[in-house]
Amino acid sequence: MRFNALMTRPHTPAVLISEVGPRDGLQSVQATMATADKLRWIDALAAAGLREIEVASFVPTHLLPQMADAAQVVQHALRHSAVRVMALVPNLRGAQAALQAGAQKLTLPVSASAAHSLANVRKTPEAMVDEVRAVLRLRDELAPGVPVEVGMSTAFGCTLQGQVPEGDVLRLAVLLAETGVDEIGLSDTTGMANPAQVGRLFKALFQEVGELAGAAHMHNTRGLGLANCLAAYEAGVRTFDSSLGGLGGCPYAPGASGNVVTEDLVFMFEAMGVDTGVDLDLLMAARAPLMAGLPGEPLYGMTPEAGLPKGWPGR
Amino acid sequence: MRFNALMTRPHTPAVLISEVGPRDGLQSVQATMATADKLRWIDALAAAGLREIEVASFVPTHLLPQMADAAQVVQHALRHSAVRVMALVPNLRGAQAALQAGAQKLTLPVSASAAHSLANVRKTPEAMVDEVRAVLRLRDELAPGVPVEVGMSTAFGCTLQGQVPEGDVLRLAVLLAETGVDEIGLSDTTGMANPAQVGRLFKALFQEVGELAGAAHMHNTRGLGLANCLAAYEAGVRTFDSSLGGLGGCPYAPGASGNVVTEDLVFMFEAMGVDTGVDLDLLMAARAPLMAGLPGEPLYGMTPEAGLPKGWPGR
Repeated sequence: MRFNALMTRPHTPAVLISEVGPRDGLQSVQATMATADKLRWIDALAAAGLREIEVASFVPTHLLPQMADAAQVVQHALRHSAVRVMALVPNLRGAQAALQAGAQKLTLPVSASAAHSLANVRKTPEAMVDEVRAVLRLRDELAPGVPVEVGMSTAFGCTLQGQVPEGDVLRLAVLLAETGVDEIGLSDTTGMANPAQVGRLFKALFQEVGELAGAAHMHNTRGLGLANCLAAYEAGVRTFDSSLGGLGGCPYAPGASGNVVTEDLVFMFEAMGVDTGVDLDLLMAARAPLMAGLPGEPLYGMTPEAGLPKGWPGR
Repeated sequence: MRFNALMTRPHTPAVLISEVGPRDGLQSVQATMATADKLRWIDALAAAGLREIEVASFVPTHLLPQMADAAQVVQHALRHSAVRVMALVPNLRGAQAALQAGAQKLTLPVSASAAHSLANVRKTPEAMVDEVRAVLRLRDELAPGVPVEVGMSTAFGCTLQGQVPEGDVLRLAVLLAETGVDEIGLSDTTGMANPAQVGRLFKALFQEVGELAGAAHMHNTRGLGLANCLAAYEAGVRTFDSSLGGLGGCPYAPGASGNVVTEDLVFMFEAMGVDTGVDLDLLMAARAPLMAGLPGEPLYGMTPEAGLPKGWPGR
């Protein structure tokens, strides 16, 4: 009986690593990766055991030519049945295209900073909440089973307005929860978060919106990416955004990595005994198709440089 | 009265950043920094508000020619009255030379891994405990006020023997406490530590040796340096070793930084509201004399690349 139970119950790792490289990473670099290279890279990420991959952004091609093949990339990624294929959509129009392409989860960025929101999408955060409502209505029509996440940008600080009051973040989270959105994550868009703040804000988020509290999207701009993920984990977060090789530069800090490096994040959790479901050897092997598709692009990550330590399972 | 109390009580930051670059960093690089450059660098570190600097290692010159000027460096550093001038000594002979030069604190490395200890100093950990006893007797004779710290190497894992049982670390800590040593720190010599292990082992160390529990000396080999420091802080540690620019390579991982980067560590604590007593602008300015003295040597650190965020005091 026990054997049968083990056979039928799907293995559920303790944390979900949401790989954002093919979207967040690729839209941040100058070069455009060829579609065939993207598909090979996504295949390698899926083979490594990643269960959620943000594969594309549905934005107008003239704004982000790197994402012109978004629908094709989504359709290809769908062949990986163990992967939830996620797409970023900035608005209703993008949501429609993403759902038509077959995206299995949508993520919408909503800025906690009004200054950032106006500069980025020419809408106030409150107007973006209306956009979320419209996306949810569309989702209910077209694809009722598809979860919609909001990633709250600049939740920990903003390069335009400086500090973002925690009360503003929480008020916006409550407004978002009232729309019926499925998840609300917090993003350190500008690399300004610190572990004390991350712990405090996620705990408050859990208090305000309960199980809707979603992913920690941390940046490594000032080297605190993993420490901030650790603080989020300790606050109860179980979904973490990161990108292979830390791809996704920080526009105002050349040479500084933007996203948390998936390889180091997975190493940290696995070393702590927190199951990620990801195979570190295959994950590091997924750097090869990334490098092949973006020749000369610098990648980050200490674990790939150092290798896995002696005594590691299989070492 | 309250005002007077504030006036007379010296300012005591919440954590002590123990800068190990001039010792740990310089002995790890191929090049030898000229003495005058070392002194300029140490002056800049002192000006930044660092209150403990490991300035040299008292080892035979034929083994580490980079440290041939150890006595001269110690004597120069003593002019900074706010700095505790620390020296590494591998044995009694080194301790004698360091105390004669005027070192204000000694640190002795004792490996928790027998394999590492034998390979490194051709002595078992137990024989090293005898050496610590001899150093303490000498200190009592020559310089009774000078604290002696043991930094327990390979406390979190060893590249030779793999895992190091936590029981071995704690038993060695108790033996060391019995010698009358002033502080017992734990070092992640090989970059194998993870935050769960760091928290667990430091908590156990506090239980075994109480206030003798000393510094966390973490490495950034696999990118976990700051996360491990955070875990140590949460376990009650208040002294952290780090090196400016992360100087101190990891011999078996070219391109991988060894030591935790002081600039990022100070940024993390200050951002969390944990006072380090260090001025981040002056700290980053201290990279200039380091780079001038070691031309072409790669430095690490994300905060110096990104700069301090908008909204930071003075920004």
